[in-house]
Amino acid sequence: MSENEPTLRVSKIKDGTVIDHITGGHALDVAKILGIAERRASVITIAMNVPSKRLGHKDMVKIEGRFLAGSEVDKIALLAPNATINIVKGYKVVEKQRVKLPDAIKGIIKCDNPACISNSNEPVQTRFYVQKAQPLCLKCHYCGHIMEKEEILKQF
Amino acid sequence: MSENEPTLRVSKIKDGTVIDHITGGHALDVAKILGIAERRASVITIAMNVPSKRLGHKDMVKIEGRFLAGSEVDKIALLAPNATINIVKGYKVVEKQRVKLPDAIKGIIKCDNPACISNSNEPVQTRFYVQKAQPLCLKCHYCGHIMEKEEILKQF
Repeated sequence: MSENEPTLRVSKIKDGTVIDHITGGHALDVAKILGIAERRASVITIAMNVPSKRLGHKDMVKIEGRFLAGSEVDKIALLAPNATINIVKGYKVVEKQRVKLPDAIKGIIKCDNPACISNSNEPVQTRFYVQKAQPLCLKCHYCGHIMEKEEILKQF
Repeated sequence: MSENEPTLRVSKIKDGTVIDHITGGHALDVAKILGIAERRASVITIAMNVPSKRLGHKDMVKIEGRFLAGSEVDKIALLAPNATINIVKGYKVVEKQRVKLPDAIKGIIKCDNPACISNSNEPVQTRFYVQKAQPLCLKCHYCGHIMEKEEILKQF
C-alpha cells in the first residue's frame, strides 16, 4: 500500500478562541483547564511541539464556539506564561490578549499545607508569590509552603 | 483589530502514526493511552469532533516519529472500536489497520472486584467479555463483575 496519509482538515473557526504560543508540550494541560477532557461536542484542534520562531517549539489550541472566562485565562497564564489568546468572531481575530503571570496569585489555587491558615475556617483568600515562572514554582504568602507545577496542575 | 486567526499548519508527517476514525470526543483518551500527556517532544496534532462521512463526527491523532505497540492498539480498540491505524513512512501510508474489539479481552485490564480470583495470588490472566461496545461495558469471566468505560479508563 502506498497512499497518502488521511488529510487532517483544520478549517478556520468562525467564532471561538485560538490559544497560541503555549509552552511546548502543555496543550493538554490547557485542555484540562478548559474542561475539554470532558468530551464536549465542539470542534477542537490541538497541535503540540510545532516549530515557533519566538519559542523554539510551541503548542496551540483552537476551540470553536467557546470563549474563555477570566479565571480560565489566569490559570493558563500559570502554565503557559507566553500564551496569546485570540478571540475570533466571523472568522476574524477581534481581540488579541497576551496572558500575564501576576506577581501575586490570589484565590486561584489552594495551599497544599493542611496547617496553613488559608485552609482553616478563617475568611482568608489564598495568595501565592511566583518564585519561578518556568517551571512554575509558587510560595504561599501565609505559611511559606512551596507549590510546584505538578501539585498545582492537580487542582485544575 | 481585524486580522486573520493564527494559522495552524498541519504538515504531513514523514514517519509516524495517524489514528483516524476515533469515536468523537475520545482523542484525549487515546492520547492518554499513548502517554502523550507526559509531554513528549514529538510533533502531535489532535482534532476533535470533526465532521466524518462514516461516523458523523470523529477525532484524529497524528504523531510524528512514533509507532504503536500491539498492547496500545488493543487499548485503543476498547475506546474507539472504529479507529483505523495508519503507519506512515517516508510521507506515505505503508500499512493500514482497522482496530478490532475482540469478544474476549485478555490480560489488558484488571477486575475492580477485590474478591475476584484474578486479584488473588493465583496465576490467573484477567479475562472480560464485551457486553456492549459503545459505551464500553465489560463483564469479568471469573466473578461476573461489570466494568464500565470510566472505570476502565482509569487503568490506562
